Amino acid sequence: MHTAPNQYFPFLCVLREGERERAAMASQSSEPTKIMMAVNESSIKGYPHASISSRTAFEWTVAKLVRSNAAGFRLLFLHVQVPDEDAFEDMDSIYASPEDFHNMNEKDRIRGLHLLEYFVNRCHQYEIPCEAWIKKGDPKELICSEVKRVKPDLLVVGSRGLGPFQRVFVGTVSEFCAKHAECPVITIKRKPADAPPDPIDD
Amino acid sequence: MHTAPNQYFPFLCVLREGERERAAMASQSSEPTKIMMAVNESSIKGYPHASISSRTAFEWTVAKLVRSNAAGFRLLFLHVQVPDEDAFEDMDSIYASPEDFHNMNEKDRIRGLHLLEYFVNRCHQYEIPCEAWIKKGDPKELICSEVKRVKPDLLVVGSRGLGPFQRVFVGTVSEFCAKHAECPVITIKRKPADAPPDPIDD
Repeated sequence: MHTAPNQYFPFLCVLREGERERAAMASQSSEPTKIMMAVNESSIKGYPHASISSRTAFEWTVAKLVRSNAAGFRLLFLHVQVPDEDAFEDMDSIYASPEDFHNMNEKDRIRGLHLLEYFVNRCHQYEIPCEAWIKKGDPKELICSEVKRVKPDLLVVGSRGLGPFQRVFVGTVSEFCAKHAECPVITIKRKPADAPPDPIDD
Repeated sequence: MHTAPNQYFPFLCVLREGERERAAMASQSSEPTKIMMAVNESSIKGYPHASISSRTAFEWTVAKLVRSNAAGFRLLFLHVQVPDEDAFEDMDSIYASPEDFHNMNEKDRIRGLHLLEYFVNRCHQYEIPCEAWIKKGDPKELICSEVKRVKPDLLVVGSRGLGPFQRVFVGTVSEFCAKHAECPVITIKRKPADAPPDPIDD
């Protein structure tokens, strides 16, 4: 388009030099891209596995970003368990002894491990290196504080893709993270065709 | 962790089958991942090249997502020219004939082409397939309508990373796109160390 662009744009020449070095450094680096994924359980009663949003976000990440370059990435799965939410599900149980509480905690722990096992197994199928861990507390706060601690290159969160009216009643973790996490964030919306009968469920 | 997970989680077994197929399909697909990037010119007077945010977003995308897998991706550069903004810069010019207006348009066109040439050249250095085109109008509206038309897998937008106080005075294209674009969006913030003396500049 231009025969002698540097004649007209002297700054460009200087900048290109610097960027060439940066690019060379980037391609030399053998550090894999660390993608943190916040995953949660399905809220559908009797559905003991990963939520539709979490699975959609994972499959998208593998198909669109990791692709055939498994060695170039490292997936970090964080599952935040909400203590209250789990207690609700056990409302019809009677706690009469210290063991009952111990058993409840143990049940939570196993559910959490089982959720992470699902994603770790999927990664092994694709030969993508991964790590997984559980935290207990408020998901949006903990996802952001774990981003601060772990410093991933990218955070991927699933979202139910609710409309503004539905969002008023359910806090959206994805929106909070997109705003406050100290790294780039991709929000992957669940496909409308995958939504369960009650779109608040996932 | 579990010796016979399917005994406790019968649904999991069924789902894994379906997902294995989907995964196989995803890895068989030879379609590259289409990443659309909205790029703009620097606002710094006398600085005729890509904005700091645009270059940061591009370098991040190459280093962290494309990595060594150039054939797996296709970068689509969209530059939206704002007619009013360009006119401001020419406020000290006198337009006395139809040719003056023609020349002004021609100058705009060359500036736009030159901006895109920069990114296309960078892609050629990395051997990443790419496309680039110019639109005229409101950047946030046009970026979203081009996403609708082109259907990229991902939209990457740079951002100056302004605080809430500064954002009140400058409309942020990145925030609008993150909310309204019909595909996943990554916002890449400019590094604080790269910010020019006036952080509104870019």
